Order: sequence, then C-alpha cells, then structure tokens
Amino acid sequence: MKSGFTVWFTGLSCAGKSTIAQAVARMLRERGLQVEVLDGDVVRENLSRGLGFSKADRDENIRRIAFVSKLLTRNGVATLVAAISPYRAAREAARREIGRFVEVYVHCPIEVCMGRDTKGLYRRAVAGEISAFTGISDPYEPPPSPELTLHTDKESPEQSAALVMSRLRELGVLPG
Amino acid sequence: MKSGFTVWFTGLSCAGKSTIAQAVARMLRERGLQVEVLDGDVVRENLSRGLGFSKADRDENIRRIAFVSKLLTRNGVATLVAAISPYRAAREAARREIGRFVEVYVHCPIEVCMGRDTKGLYRRAVAGEISAFTGISDPYEPPPSPELTLHTDKESPEQSAALVMSRLRELGVLPG
Repeated sequence: MKSGFTVWFTGLSCAGKSTIAQAVARMLRERGLQVEVLDGDVVRENLSRGLGFSKADRDENIRRIAFVSKLLTRNGVATLVAAISPYRAAREAARREIGRFVEVYVHCPIEVCMGRDTKGLYRRAVAGEISAFTGISDPYEPPPSPELTLHTDKESPEQSAALVMSRLRELGVLPG
Repeated sequence: MKSGFTVWFTGLSCAGKSTIAQAVARMLRERGLQVEVLDGDVVRENLSRGLGFSKADRDENIRRIAFVSKLLTRNGVATLVAAISPYRAAREAARREIGRFVEVYVHCPIEVCMGRDTKGLYRRAVAGEISAFTGISDPYEPPPSPELTLHTDKESPEQSAALVMSRLRELGVLPG
C-alpha cells in the first residue's frame, strides 16, 4: 500500500508535460493505482497565489509542489507532477525531499513549442507582453541525468506515455 | 481503498489540537489506515511562507490546507488537520471542498490555554509583542454545529482522542 512514487515531468511550456501526465495517469489507474496529477498551473492557483516568476518565486512554487508530492507519495499515491520547473537545483531538492522520484525530461525544440503555443503565451512573450518567460526571456536548465528523456516532436503523447510506463517497470517502481 | 476522510481540529492556540491529532493518528495507524497529520505550523512553513495573520492571509492559508487535504482525502488517506482556523466561513469552505469532513471543536477556556502557553505566545501577545493573536487581539468564531466538541480542560488527550474515534465510528467514517 505504501508504494507511492512521484514522476516529475519537466520541460518548456507546450512541450507536452500535462498531456503525457494525463495519459500516464490513465494507464496507472487502469492498473488500480491511486493516482494524482499535480499540474503546474492548477497548483499555482491553489498553493501559490501571489507568487510571480522570479527565480525565488519559481523555487518557492516548486518547493510547495515537492512538499505536497512528498505527502502523497508517502501515503502510497502515484503522483505525477507536470511543471516547467526550469531550475536544476530546485528539481534536485524535490528529488531529495520526495525520495521515490523519477525525473522525466519532456524535450521538445522551442520552435516546435512556439508552433503549438496552445495558450498564446509564446506570442505574448515574444511581443514583450510577458516577462521572465522560460525559453524566451528566462532560462531553462535541462536535467543532466533524468531517468527518461522524451522527444515529443517525434513521439505521439501515447507513445511518450508508453515509454514512461516501460521505464517505471524497468526501474522497479511498477511491478512488471 | 478510496475511503479517505478529513478530521479538522479547530480551536485556540494551546487548546490541544496537535496533541489530540497525533493521538488519533496513532489509533488510526494501529487500524492499518494511511494517516497524515497536517499541523498548522508545519503547513505555514511549507505552503504559506510570506503569509501573515490578517483575515485574508489566514483565509488563504486555510484554503491551501483544504486543497492539500482534498488531494489526500480523495486518495484514501485519513487526514488530520490541526489548525486554529478561526473563521467559520473558511472552515465551511474547507468542508465543501473536501467532502468527507468531520469538524472537531477543541474547546478549552482561554484562561486554561494561557496557563499552558507552551510556546510563550500568549505572554507575548498580552505584552503586545505579537499582533492579531487569536483570542487576544483577533477573533475566534466557534463552530455552530461541529460533529464533535472536546473539552480539553476536563479530558486527558487520550480521552479526547478516544471520543474522536468513537464519533468517527458513529458517523460511519470508520468501520465499527
């Protein structure tokens, strides 16, 4: 029962983090697991009103997500975090805090992300209407050694999700 | 497996909320339940850095605790919240958000709480060194119809915890 874990999806806006997390959530629920998705936008609204996008505020936001993920994980929940989480140190701190932690780098070239631009944020960032936008006017630090790297410019969301499931089995996080 | 619930302990500082929550947690763990205690002070440190003690900030803090309690509860965790939570409306909002919600009013006359004063906060509040201190310089709105009222000036923590367990069985939250 206490076999919770956290899969942490990091990557640029529009890279596909939430879509893949939702697909993985469905697959895990089909296996009878308790699953919770912590989506960056939803968490910001619920835990981080008042925080902005400075490095300090982003770090604090990630710290809060990590705290909640730890609570869920230690109570047996498969927790899927979909958050840009651009700073390496903050993700490493989350890993230490949570313990059973699988980092998935959702890689996608920024030109492809900008082509998707589902919420029109890149357009506004390029126009200077949004400041401190990751990949445009704010840094993204790729993970040096994630448990898995996805390439969402080449894979469908279902393919990416299947790769995640396969890696979770390989790591022994999921029973084969 | 999805039989989570939240027991929400409200009352003055030093009324005994955390002590009783920890005692109930032990009893629930002995029954094999997944249990998490969300202590007001710990949550403030982890989710609400930067928030103060104005009504708006207290309400936001309670909203965050309620959000996390909802996540834990819907994933089958017995969640015990120990937080002053002085405002009725904020507790009612938490009840609506969480669903399976048992409100426990940890009642204790303020003179008795002031006599305990385990952290020396009442002394400082009376001396004017802490402003907006519940019961001294800030209001506490008692619950009009909690599922249970404890009287910690007359009961030992173990007795209070046993009353909580008994009420949980009565309400059908715990299997008899």
